[in-house]
Amino acid sequence: MADPSFSLTVPEGDDIARKVCDTCGFVAYENPKIVVGSVVRHDGRILLCRRAIEPRRGFWTIPAGYLELNETPEDGARREAREEARATLAIERLLAVYSVPRISQVQLIYRASLAEPGFAAGPESLDVRLFAEDEIPYDELAFPSVHWALGHDREAEAGAPPIPFSNPDGETGSRMPSGERLGVDRM
Amino acid sequence: MADPSFSLTVPEGDDIARKVCDTCGFVAYENPKIVVGSVVRHDGRILLCRRAIEPRRGFWTIPAGYLELNETPEDGARREAREEARATLAIERLLAVYSVPRISQVQLIYRASLAEPGFAAGPESLDVRLFAEDEIPYDELAFPSVHWALGHDREAEAGAPPIPFSNPDGETGSRMPSGERLGVDRM
Ligand SMILES: [Zn+2]
Ligand SMILES: [Zn+2]
Repeated sequence: MADPSFSLTVPEGDDIARKVCDTCGFVAYENPKIVVGSVVRHDGRILLCRRAIEPRRGFWTIPAGYLELNETPEDGARREAREEARATLAIERLLAVYSVPRISQVQLIYRASLAEPGFAAGPESLDVRLFAEDEIPYDELAFPSVHWALGHDREAEAGAPPIPFSNPDGETGSRMPSGERLGVDRM
Repeated sequence: MADPSFSLTVPEGDDIARKVCDTCGFVAYENPKIVVGSVVRHDGRILLCRRAIEPRRGFWTIPAGYLELNETPEDGARREAREEARATLAIERLLAVYSVPRISQVQLIYRASLAEPGFAAGPESLDVRLFAEDEIPYDELAFPSVHWALGHDREAEAGAPPIPFSNPDGETGSRMPSGERLGVDRM
């Protein structure tokens, strides 16, 4: 079978161009994706994973990934921490809801702790470590929303009311705090 | 071109069965969907739309629908209110985050008001009306999460802190408060 090739066409009864398969006419409706992740604290330190995969291989991130079919967001956040950090989480509450419209992502980020003490690098991680707040490698974080989530978690830890945060004012997830523009920043 | 037919197959490098096109091999990755909607208040009354489309045609719902590509959730909630109720919203804040894992939905529901006084039935609505709280047709609401959202909005109106609500304890969106089991309850 040939690799499918797609053309942008407005299907009948629709009002937006969709990817339609040139071979069989299948309409590939693309939808925004839901990322679920957690800021995980243990003994005052924060769990970060060094990415073994592109994009942003070698950079540090919180355990996070795409919600799967038939999964609740909390279950998805726990699954991602198991996969990426071999960690078992106790989820405390929803920390933030971020939106990255350029890449059609909505991110649900939870506050969590380790329900059991162990952790280790899963197949998508080069390394997993606990960082004290003043040791966090801010220059080597993978995505803008990792910066946001760590900052918002720090505010929560300092006593901010338990209202989920959202994107910092004017930020759409297209640039790092350094000003670097991102071509691809899927988690 | 024939209608595409799909078989469930685990693609190479994956660990979950996906729908693969029998004609061309296209892998139809299905993802959870994001529903965005609003509880809209105007002069102490609540805006509801009577559905002109299946499922749950003839039942009342809040303006809500699927988030589109490259849209923020707030923009999506405003778009759905324009489409279904010809209404222009001022969004106040996130009211609730619900999860309906059986149909792979995450719902972001906002509190909003009418930014302009007018409204009218759009093509997906038979009727759009403002209801006083004691006039709401609870027996004719379309989905469990419409019940939840109206109840949570009432709690917010009564002074509950601005922390988004989530599913009522033990509820997964599979049944109406009457006990009726739902086969399909996509919004
Ligand atoms: Zn095809
Ligand atoms: Zn095909």
